[in-house]
Parts: sequence; structure tokens; C-alpha cells
Amino acid sequence: MKPLSVRLSGVPKSSIRKLFDLLTQEDAISLGIGQPDFPAPQAVIDATIAALREGKGSVYAPTMGIPRLKAIIAQKLQKENNIAADPEKNVMVTNGGSGSITLAFAAILNPGDEVILFSPNFLSYFYVASYFDAKAVEAPRRPDFGPSLDALEKLVSPKTKAVLINSPNNPTGYACSRAEIEAIASFCIEHDLYLISDEVYEKIIYDGFTHVSPASLDGMADRTITLNAASKTLSLTGFRVGYLCAPEPMLPLMENYIQYTCAGTNHPCQYGVAAGLEQILKEPASLDPVIKAYQKKRDACYARLNEAGLECPKPRGAFYIMPRVDATGMDGAAFSRRLVESSGVAVVPGGGFGKYSANHVRVSYAIDDLKLDDALSRIERFVKSGK
Amino acid sequence: MKPLSVRLSGVPKSSIRKLFDLLTQEDAISLGIGQPDFPAPQAVIDATIAALREGKGSVYAPTMGIPRLKAIIAQKLQKENNIAADPEKNVMVTNGGSGSITLAFAAILNPGDEVILFSPNFLSYFYVASYFDAKAVEAPRRPDFGPSLDALEKLVSPKTKAVLINSPNNPTGYACSRAEIEAIASFCIEHDLYLISDEVYEKIIYDGFTHVSPASLDGMADRTITLNAASKTLSLTGFRVGYLCAPEPMLPLMENYIQYTCAGTNHPCQYGVAAGLEQILKEPASLDPVIKAYQKKRDACYARLNEAGLECPKPRGAFYIMPRVDATGMDGAAFSRRLVESSGVAVVPGGGFGKYSANHVRVSYAIDDLKLDDALSRIERFVKSGK
Repeated sequence: MKPLSVRLSGVPKSSIRKLFDLLTQEDAISLGIGQPDFPAPQAVIDATIAALREGKGSVYAPTMGIPRLKAIIAQKLQKENNIAADPEKNVMVTNGGSGSITLAFAAILNPGDEVILFSPNFLSYFYVASYFDAKAVEAPRRPDFGPSLDALEKLVSPKTKAVLINSPNNPTGYACSRAEIEAIASFCIEHDLYLISDEVYEKIIYDGFTHVSPASLDGMADRTITLNAASKTLSLTGFRVGYLCAPEPMLPLMENYIQYTCAGTNHPCQYGVAAGLEQILKEPASLDPVIKAYQKKRDACYARLNEAGLECPKPRGAFYIMPRVDATGMDGAAFSRRLVESSGVAVVPGGGFGKYSANHVRVSYAIDDLKLDDALSRIERFVKSGK
Repeated sequence: MKPLSVRLSGVPKSSIRKLFDLLTQEDAISLGIGQPDFPAPQAVIDATIAALREGKGSVYAPTMGIPRLKAIIAQKLQKENNIAADPEKNVMVTNGGSGSITLAFAAILNPGDEVILFSPNFLSYFYVASYFDAKAVEAPRRPDFGPSLDALEKLVSPKTKAVLINSPNNPTGYACSRAEIEAIASFCIEHDLYLISDEVYEKIIYDGFTHVSPASLDGMADRTITLNAASKTLSLTGFRVGYLCAPEPMLPLMENYIQYTCAGTNHPCQYGVAAGLEQILKEPASLDPVIKAYQKKRDACYARLNEAGLECPKPRGAFYIMPRVDATGMDGAAFSRRLVESSGVAVVPGGGFGKYSANHVRVSYAIDDLKLDDALSRIERFVKSGK
């Protein structure tokens, strides 16, 4: 038989998905997946059901998304992110956050291009770049997981097409300050680079932190692609509905790409997402209890992991924390494997998030308080006694 | 600003989607889109609503699809297509038929590879191939739109990686006989080629025709990718849920591709599709009224278009008919533009389906009988009087 795709043959299976295969114990606890543990707003479910009953499942959605959802996204961008977006020229609906990443890369990358990102970072960026024959170049984060401008300066070259930031960040929990966002934006303007800003965790921020969208800064609207999704904010990972805001010249390219590769996005669920985003626009405080619950979980993880000798900076957002584990004599891969085998707790080896995090693991704390407490106790026991 | 993607910049907007922009008249009738005009089975809607209420929208589906749906697909392939498929090793759920095409191409194509298809054919094949730096090579169809083995022989080269068939076919309505499928399969074995078989219209066949799946033929299972979707059979174009059956070595590549580019497929809707496929498996006759209704529409189109001097072969399947229009002194593009402007009827110019159909237009007859009758009358008037 003739050879299969060389591009795809080198791509490893997601270390997160691999982990699930190991979770065979009956009382296993996964701190492995990035999925909210609260239910989606009832308004989302009701609006989706109404759309299903109206027959929207039997009709293609417009390729770029239904007008109602695009209009609400534009309102949301204006009000929450201070981004002026024309719903017909800058906004489109995608197949989830991953679909947004794919479209951003599809629109701007040519073979040989490089995208600089801070490492560790979300693993899809690396592989989706490779699907377009481009390369994700890793700029090491500071020890507190903040972005290093020095590292950017060292890595930029004529091959560099874009910088990508994901703030608040998966897997580190770091969120960039206004000053950091401004510095990265200036760097992009100075070097004529696009900026891809993945903001799927924008709402999950702690300690009064303020999220800043780079597309809102002077001179950035025409070089910034803002990625987002319903998945994390509305607890809708199962919907695969995301969205993006991009400079006008990119949209026709993205339209053709999504048209031929997916023929658009699930139609009835777009009505649900529109209802959910509208509700948050009207009652921003409706998310407060969720964020407060996450913050409590974050506090528990931060305190107990550090106390157990697994050193980690305090996350400012998202629902991940990323301790170093090499003080145990194990790297992230060994720690993760032995922890799941001996204690039935799954955490993701840091090596899956780039070359600077082999000695880390990612802990997702978006689970029930009692389970989280149990899992942290098992980790403490495992670190102390090796079992 | 740096240049955008060269790969994507050359791709035109779908001529079908462009057509919609012209449909401004209040009494306009679109014969433009490939979308069934009957409602989805109630069982689909009910099962999807139940899954939504159970919270499946808040949980990622397994990357390859939910086990229940994969099991039913494997049963369906065995019973209806005579294909032996292991639900865990050969079957996956995709983002619609277009998602299936993308995954098939992603898994087997390397830059410079060629896929031979019979032309005219569905336009996505051309563009998705180009996204992987491969090329769709057009083998001209016979005058009756049947496949020409001679054309295959002339075009095959060391660059050829696969043959692609779409039977029953969009846009021609042609469906391959068993003998034709066997001949194409032998050709693939002889030249060590993969065969991509897009069977989304398998159920929409007329005059007692029997659909044959090439993966059921001796020696073909390990070189055939069978593509399908819920869209046409269950009237679920708005769900974007498709599926495919492929040789075992391809599945891990497809899994990584869908994982990083889309993170899987809409979760609640998979339960709906499972219920719909199960119902058809149990009561195959439940589709009969739909097919009968399509056949009546086909008969009307075939008789009246030919009578009006727009010559076309009798379709054996799908819900398209593709008349030549050059007897009117216009090519397909001019005919389509002037017809929509003067009569408010949209048909798709044949040039969008390849280089051998510039003098044709595609008529989709999946619309209400009265509207179809009205549209055919307007076409007759337009051909006679030019308005």
C-alpha cells in the first residue's frame, strides 16, 4: 500500500486522551481534562431545544454563523472586550475553540512560517501549525509562567508570521497584565506580526484581575485574531461552537476554508449559544458563583501542592495549575504514570505542552470539591510515600 | 501587513453560496442547494433533546464518536453495505460529510499527490485536495455521466494516490452499477491506489437501482475509505454529523487530525443520529415515501427540462439533475445569472463542478412540488422567450 500522510504520521496522540486509557480503577479521579464541572445555563438548553423543534437541524446554518449569534458576539466584543467588530465583516462562528485555532492558522500561515508562543502552552497549537507546514516556536516562560519579552526578541526572524498568546493560559493558569499585553502588542507592531489571542478562559479570572484583549489596543485591530468559544464560559464543550473576530481581509479565506472542510457549524446549537451569551451580557454577575467556586478550588490546590513540595506559581485564571514534580526524583511523565497506577489520580505530563515543561504536570481542578480533596490527599500520600 | 495564506487565497467562494446573494426577489425559488426538504425523523429530535437534558452538551464526546453511534454505524455497514467494520478500529464520527472528506484526504495525501475523480463532481473535493497541496485530477464522464475507465487509464501516473467516486453523484445524479464499481475497484488494485467512496446519497436511488459499496468487494477493504453522513438520509444538514469507515492504519491519523482541529463532533446530536440510523436499520421501508416523492420530482424535471430543449440524462439517484444549456446560446454561468435575474429561479452554473461542465447547470429538485412546478414553468418560459 502507498504511504499515508507524512504530515500526520509524526503527530502523537494527545497525552490527555492517552491518560484516559489508564484510568481503569473504579475510584479513579481525573484531574486530566479541561472541562467545566458546572451545568450549562438553562437558557442555552431551552433555546437549543426550541431550535431543534423548529427544524433547524434539517437546514444548513449560514456558513459564517447565524445572524443572531454573530450580532450578539459583536455586542459582547464591544461591551466586554472593547473591540469594535462588524458582525458581517469581522465575526464568524467556528467548530469550537479548536476550530477557531485552525481557521486562524489556515488564514495566515504559509509553509515555513513560524508562530512564536510562550511555552508551556496548549498542545493543539503545535500540531495545527504543523498541519499547515508551519512551526510553533517556543519562547520559554518566566519561572512565574509570565511572558518573556527577551525570549521573543531572541526568537523573532524573517520567518516569524505571528505571536500567539493564550491568556488566561492552559496549562499554566497565568494571565497577562495590561502592561504585558501592551508590550506584546508593541512587539507585533514593531516586527509587523499578526497576533493570535486565544481568550477562551477570559471569564475565569481571580483576585479581581482584569482581562485585556489585545485587539482593543491602538493599531492592533487589523493584525489581531481574537479566538473564543462557548465551551469554557458556558460549560458547552460538547457543543463544539466557538467564534472568532478577525481583520476583514481574513474572513473570506476563513469562509472558504470552513465551507469546504466542515460546511459550517451545528445549526440548532448556535441558537443555544446566542441565548447563553446574551444572558451573560445582561447579567454579568450570573457567572460569579462559578468563578468563586473555581477560586476556592484553586486556593486549595495552590496551598496543598506547594505544601507537599510540588512547587507552583499561583494561577491568575483558567482552571489549571502546573506544579514542578522533579523534587520527587521523577519527571512529569514518570510522575503522571506512577500516580495514576498507584493512586488512581490522573494528571497530564507537562512534556505534552512543550519542551520546557518535562518536569511539570498539569492539574485541572474543574471537578467536584470532595473529589478534588480526595485527589489532593492521594497526591500528598503519593509524594510522601511513593504510593 | 504580511501576506495571508497563499493556499487559501486562490480558492473561490462556493458558486452555490454566491447564488444566494442574488436571490433577492420576494417570490424567488432556489433550485440551488443540496438539502432535503422533508423533516428529520421525530426519533432523532427526541433523542437529541434527551441528551441535551442529560447534560451531554457540557461534556466532550469521545474524539472518535460515542460508542453507541459507532456500534450502530458498524451494524449499518454490515447489514446495508456488506462491509465488515470493527466499531473501535474502522469507524469514526465526523463533522458532517465535508468533515469525512477532509479526514480522508488528511490521512492519505502528501504534497504533489493526485486524486482522480470523474468530472463534473462535488466542488469540495477540488478545494480540500488543494488544502493538502494535492490535486484533484478530472477524468471526463461519459455523455450519460457514467464513469469512463479509458479516462482513468489515461490519467493514472506515479503521482496518483487515489480514485474518488461519489455514487449516487452530486451534481449529475449518476449512480454506478455493480459492474462499474467492480471495474473501478480492479483498477485501484491493479495500480495500488486507495479508493475514496463518498456514499452520502446511497439511500436516494430510483427505479429499483441497487447501491454497491466498493469496500464490500474482495481485496478492497484495506484500500477503501467509505464516507457517509446523516445529512441527506436523515435530513440533518444542520447537525454537521457524518461518519466514515477506513482501514485500521488510517484511524489514528484521523483521530489526531480531528482532535487538534475540531476536538471531535457535537455530543448531544450524536445521540440523535444514533436513534435515526437505528430506526432505518429496523424499518428500512420508513424511507420509501421520501424516495418516492423524490422520484416524482425527478420524473417531472427530466421530462420537462428535456422537452424545453435542456438536454439531460435521467438521474439514477441523489436529488440533482444536470442539463446542458448551450442550446440556448448561453453557457452555464450566463444561463444561471440571467435566469435568476429575469425569473427569480436559482440554479448552479456547471463550471463550479469542474472543467467539463461549463455548458451545464445543476438543478436541485429537493423542494416542495408546487414550487418545483412553478420553477420549471419559469425555466420553460425563460428558455422560450429569454425572460
